[in-house]
Amino acid sequence: MKHEKNFLHNDKFALHAGIELLEVTSGGAKVKMAVKPFHINGVGLVHGGALFTLADFAFAAAANSHEEVAVAINASISYLKAVKSGTLYAEAEEISNSRKISVYSIKITDEQNELVSMFQGMAYKKGTGGK
Amino acid sequence: MKHEKNFLHNDKFALHAGIELLEVTSGGAKVKMAVKPFHINGVGLVHGGALFTLADFAFAAAANSHEEVAVAINASISYLKAVKSGTLYAEAEEISNSRKISVYSIKITDEQNELVSMFQGMAYKKGTGGK
Amino acid sequence: MKHEKNFLHNDKFALHAGIELLEVTSGGAKVKMAVKPFHINGVGLVHGGALFTLADFAFAAAANSHEEVAVAINASISYLKAVKSGTLYAEAEEISNSRKISVYSIKITDEQNELVSMFQGMAYKKGTGGK
Amino acid sequence: MKHEKNFLHNDKFALHAGIELLEVTSGGAKVKMAVKPFHINGVGLVHGGALFTLADFAFAAAANSHEEVAVAINASISYLKAVKSGTLYAEAEEISNSRKISVYSIKITDEQNELVSMFQGMAYKKGTGGK
Repeated sequence: MKHEKNFLHNDKFALHAGIELLEVTSGGAKVKMAVKPFHINGVGLVHGGALFTLADFAFAAAANSHEEVAVAINASISYLKAVKSGTLYAEAEEISNSRKISVYSIKITDEQNELVSMFQGMAYKKGTGGK
Repeated sequence: MKHEKNFLHNDKFALHAGIELLEVTSGGAKVKMAVKPFHINGVGLVHGGALFTLADFAFAAAANSHEEVAVAINASISYLKAVKSGTLYAEAEEISNSRKISVYSIKITDEQNELVSMFQGMAYKKGTGGK
Repeated sequence: MKHEKNFLHNDKFALHAGIELLEVTSGGAKVKMAVKPFHINGVGLVHGGALFTLADFAFAAAANSHEEVAVAINASISYLKAVKSGTLYAEAEEISNSRKISVYSIKITDEQNELVSMFQGMAYKKGTGGK
Repeated sequence: MKHEKNFLHNDKFALHAGIELLEVTSGGAKVKMAVKPFHINGVGLVHGGALFTLADFAFAAAANSHEEVAVAINASISYLKAVKSGTLYAEAEEISNSRKISVYSIKITDEQNELVSMFQGMAYKKGTGGK
């Protein structure tokens, strides 16, 4: 699991987006993002790209919580509730984990624990070791 | 179309991610992002969230190129080629534009014009006027 | 809810595919399909189109369980486990239900209650009344 | 490419759904479906499951047009135009084809060549030979 630790600490874009890792379990992860002015889009709401990046970080942490390096091959997101401020959380749950492919469902919630976005990600396992 | 101009110039997260608008046409848009150290993920590649944000900005620009304010309701991305550096481009094409729903396909390409990611976005039209 | 009942009973393609409605609740639905020779694809497994149709029927039943007629605008499916025979179940859960858009997550399981596919569907509400 | 031929001719669910293979090229395929009463859903339109199955067959044909057996791992569909009758066509285009993963975009069109649905499918290559 050593690759995972480095992997998460070296994630410069997650850092740039103000995302913080809260917890990694086997197949799961929880992250958070306190909404800052730079997260806002042209109509005053948290940007879809910021929401995606938040969920994606939980996805990457969960997908890499096992022995093997896993890379994202596909992801989809549905936007359910517009948000302007506060702290957002993303929690990844492992849906499936077969020999080469794993699938995660990530929920983004706000401080009232209301669902903001649903994200689904699929990862391909590159094998153990490496970076 | 006035809402669109403000909308694009006020997009703070696109600015934060170093994304630049190149062109907006009726139903289309082209944007670019020069890869910087802060775009990189834990394994040394351009972050999925940065790629998504790049495509999402082209999607938002294209979806808002008509009279009405359109908000993203759903998006998916497939990662086709890993990238480490250089300048990336995203170009949005309008696939469908009905009364309330519009669909866009966005291709991310690198400097060699090779396909890096495919993004598909669906927007809901909130009607003309206001933000 | 009258539109829903007719709607489900008149679904000729669900009937053609051997799908049976088990239960509709407010925002939810459960359906089943006993695998028959005509469900099989070229490599001896239950066809992706049959799995999709099974989940889609649960999605349609759940999305139309409220007052308004809702039409599917988008759906995605991940194939997690290959199946050859037995009875499959699809159960829809409401993820979000706003004024015009609703989102459902549908799990397909086999007789051992193992996850076969995950489906996510988004519907657009056309308003109350008629077809 | 022998696996592909058997594969397509043995697809019982495509046959059951009245889908006919028109053409397979390297990385591409074209199929058609003449709308019959059994394709119709509860509101009198061609069923989303029938549209999905049509596109899925073109996807499977294209994904298996190379040396290796490829299985679908993920697919998404957007419904753009409602259809009641006539003949529908699905044409698959190869978007990406890497060592283990390939991606296809499939357009469903009607007799007026108008876009009915957009489908995107991702396949995993199981290696040469086998079934």
